Amino acid sequence: MSDLSAVLDRADKNLPGSLERLFELVRIKSISTDPAYAGECRRAAEWLVKELQGLGFDASVRDTPGHPMVVAHHAGASADAPHALFYGHYDVQPVDPLALWETDPFEPTIRQEDGRDVITGRGTSDDKGQLLTFVEACRAYKEVKGALPARITILFEGEEESGSPSLKPFLEAHKEELKADFALVCDTSMWNRETPAISAGLRGLVGEEIVVKAAKRDLHSGYYGGAAANPIHVLARILAGLHDETGRVTLPGFYDGVEETPEDIKAMWQTLGLTDEAFLGEIGLSRPSGEKGRSVLELTWARPTAEVNGIEGGYTGEGFKTVIAAQASAKVSFRLVGKQDPNAIRESFRAYVRARLPEDCSVEFHAHGGSPAIQLPYDSALLAKAKEALSAEWPKPAVVIGMGGSIPIVGDFQKMLGMESMLTGFALSDDRIHSPNEKYDLNSYHRGIRSWIRILDRLAG
Amino acid sequence: MSDLSAVLDRADKNLPGSLERLFELVRIKSISTDPAYAGECRRAAEWLVKELQGLGFDASVRDTPGHPMVVAHHAGASADAPHALFYGHYDVQPVDPLALWETDPFEPTIRQEDGRDVITGRGTSDDKGQLLTFVEACRAYKEVKGALPARITILFEGEEESGSPSLKPFLEAHKEELKADFALVCDTSMWNRETPAISAGLRGLVGEEIVVKAAKRDLHSGYYGGAAANPIHVLARILAGLHDETGRVTLPGFYDGVEETPEDIKAMWQTLGLTDEAFLGEIGLSRPSGEKGRSVLELTWARPTAEVNGIEGGYTGEGFKTVIAAQASAKVSFRLVGKQDPNAIRESFRAYVRARLPEDCSVEFHAHGGSPAIQLPYDSALLAKAKEALSAEWPKPAVVIGMGGSIPIVGDFQKMLGMESMLTGFALSDDRIHSPNEKYDLNSYHRGIRSWIRILDRLAG
Repeated sequence: MSDLSAVLDRADKNLPGSLERLFELVRIKSISTDPAYAGECRRAAEWLVKELQGLGFDASVRDTPGHPMVVAHHAGASADAPHALFYGHYDVQPVDPLALWETDPFEPTIRQEDGRDVITGRGTSDDKGQLLTFVEACRAYKEVKGALPARITILFEGEEESGSPSLKPFLEAHKEELKADFALVCDTSMWNRETPAISAGLRGLVGEEIVVKAAKRDLHSGYYGGAAANPIHVLARILAGLHDETGRVTLPGFYDGVEETPEDIKAMWQTLGLTDEAFLGEIGLSRPSGEKGRSVLELTWARPTAEVNGIEGGYTGEGFKTVIAAQASAKVSFRLVGKQDPNAIRESFRAYVRARLPEDCSVEFHAHGGSPAIQLPYDSALLAKAKEALSAEWPKPAVVIGMGGSIPIVGDFQKMLGMESMLTGFALSDDRIHSPNEKYDLNSYHRGIRSWIRILDRLAG
Repeated sequence: MSDLSAVLDRADKNLPGSLERLFELVRIKSISTDPAYAGECRRAAEWLVKELQGLGFDASVRDTPGHPMVVAHHAGASADAPHALFYGHYDVQPVDPLALWETDPFEPTIRQEDGRDVITGRGTSDDKGQLLTFVEACRAYKEVKGALPARITILFEGEEESGSPSLKPFLEAHKEELKADFALVCDTSMWNRETPAISAGLRGLVGEEIVVKAAKRDLHSGYYGGAAANPIHVLARILAGLHDETGRVTLPGFYDGVEETPEDIKAMWQTLGLTDEAFLGEIGLSRPSGEKGRSVLELTWARPTAEVNGIEGGYTGEGFKTVIAAQASAKVSFRLVGKQDPNAIRESFRAYVRARLPEDCSVEFHAHGGSPAIQLPYDSALLAKAKEALSAEWPKPAVVIGMGGSIPIVGDFQKMLGMESMLTGFALSDDRIHSPNEKYDLNSYHRGIRSWIRILDRLAG
């Protein structure tokens, strides 16, 4: 039996104990957004520290103005072993509406669902089960070989579900301690039950709120209509002009730093078999609405967007009111890819808005966050090794995908610690995260542990 | 002391009591567009009936499918006295945003504003104060002479601010009872604080609410942005396309039936001395926003418009939410002039919207009232007599003007009862009707009562 086989074998034998440990962690009600559960959040952090200390980590609970962090360090098998920072979060979403849960959200069980064994409970998938796949991988390694193949630093956060207010200051204050060769993040999903996925692209985000102001008060549309500026008209023209007839965003310089996705990657996405019709049909739509001539996967993973997330002005209650509003407002967000610069896009948008404003109207801008896109280079060694390791464990080869959403931690690792991140995870799209009856497949947990053993082995090789 | 002087004198002496009665009526929260205030609307009708009965009117509350009408009759001093139908409305606009009111909208007070005494409260100007000027004129007449100079029928409506859904059926069902020699309507403004005005032209109105629907639920803009239709974008394009770059409305057939205003009328309006700068400066604007090359008086009195009165979609609370809304809605109104057909314009708008809808989106339309424009001939005897009476009361002679707003009743009187209407009123352009801090000048109320005494006297002479 090879070294690796022995470690994998140990993980299999450890599974009942691994499940016991996951159950213990899930029983701790670490709901970060509700101050009533602050003590439970601390208990989860303390539980993790104790487990990691038991594996030989130098682990401790670190206080923050919010819920504590867990930081742990373990040496590698050799001085030239790579140094990985592993990130996960121990906090969970609230459980209401409680009446919709079929089992107690904090009393995990294993039950059958569609012929599969699933572990029920809040946080089983997001993110307690996922983070423990890595801890249990370390356990099997340690038990078989007495050492870890890589130098490991672990960072577990307790505020991921409530906006991570303490994270940036903590990274800033502990840069030297936390910086590694690269980061490993386990908070994402598989492509499907047979196919693991690595998320290589994460779109960035710029949020802007604009308030267009015209007359100094609301006006009667009979007396003033046809003569007085209507801020809703001004706003509608501004928003309507954000896209041209081909669906492209019209802001000057918007596409600076956007590169076309390589043909081989697009070809790989083609093989995933997710048609535009299937993607859109699930939400009651039938045709892509963005840039013409691109698939929904390309549109959501690799292309930037401008979206109006909210609009409000004038009378919106029951019935009708013939008013010309004094002001109208919109919340607009831009998803960024490649090397698009959040500040440049914010400024381009503001200049675009100002240029379309009648001279007797004014506008207020309110910034709501900005982060660049993250792209792990398709030729990165980290990516290639993780892909090989995952492909060895699962029935189908790992796929490299994009992600439409933003995971701020990955941008912070890049910007503050200069580290690239490899994101993989074993959640499934039917895990009902953030909803009642969250679950994590037993298979996700078991093969997730084995996957990290293979990844650690390959990264050290 | 002549008969007329004695009546005018009585109106002066009655003023404190007249104000008490106005305050009582303003305290009744008769917001017609909000079903929660249906009981208050009925209370206002009952209050008016009681007042009119006290003056010797045969008055009653008349039920409708909506809010009730008030109908009252009083004989004239002689059998050959003319018969006038007086119209006003007791319902008022909603008061939100309540936070912007400096006094309770339903607890009227008299306070100083720019050196004038003004009566504060919702409906003081539109239209409770105005309709009571006529009732109080009747009171003074009755008290001094024991009779009214003309036969009077009164019609008070409770749905004017919510599209008057019950009015047409009510007129149709009570044609014989309501038909008079002419109608007097008190729901308009003075030209300025010294110059009374008679409105000879009234714009019509078409109200439409549209709801654009896209995905079957709200979407995460990270996962779906760039691929899924955004109903706010669709709506913004529809609304932005309603006007071309010269300010003209783009709907096919929209200008059918619109005639250019005669040059002599435009020349008279020129002499009124109201510059674009003055008209717009008062509301904090500086340049006409509608059709290019026309004065604000022409734009608001004699040209049709399309205005968005309200818009709503997506997340509009504090902060930011990266959502793509399932639907977005807007309330749109069209002001009509000349012989524009309300039904044709509604259909043209609906066809325009449908043509701009992506194939996987849908739209709902909700009609909110429709009425054609009205024009009282400039050589009418009714107009001439009212002009003389008003000119005797106020510092400056009365002027004959157009009106931007819509008073559907005037079209219905014309069409259904074959009556012309003489519109005059004592509101001022700074009364903030439909807005927070609505007020009515004490002088408007006092001289308004005196004006109706003079008009009744002149019409009977």
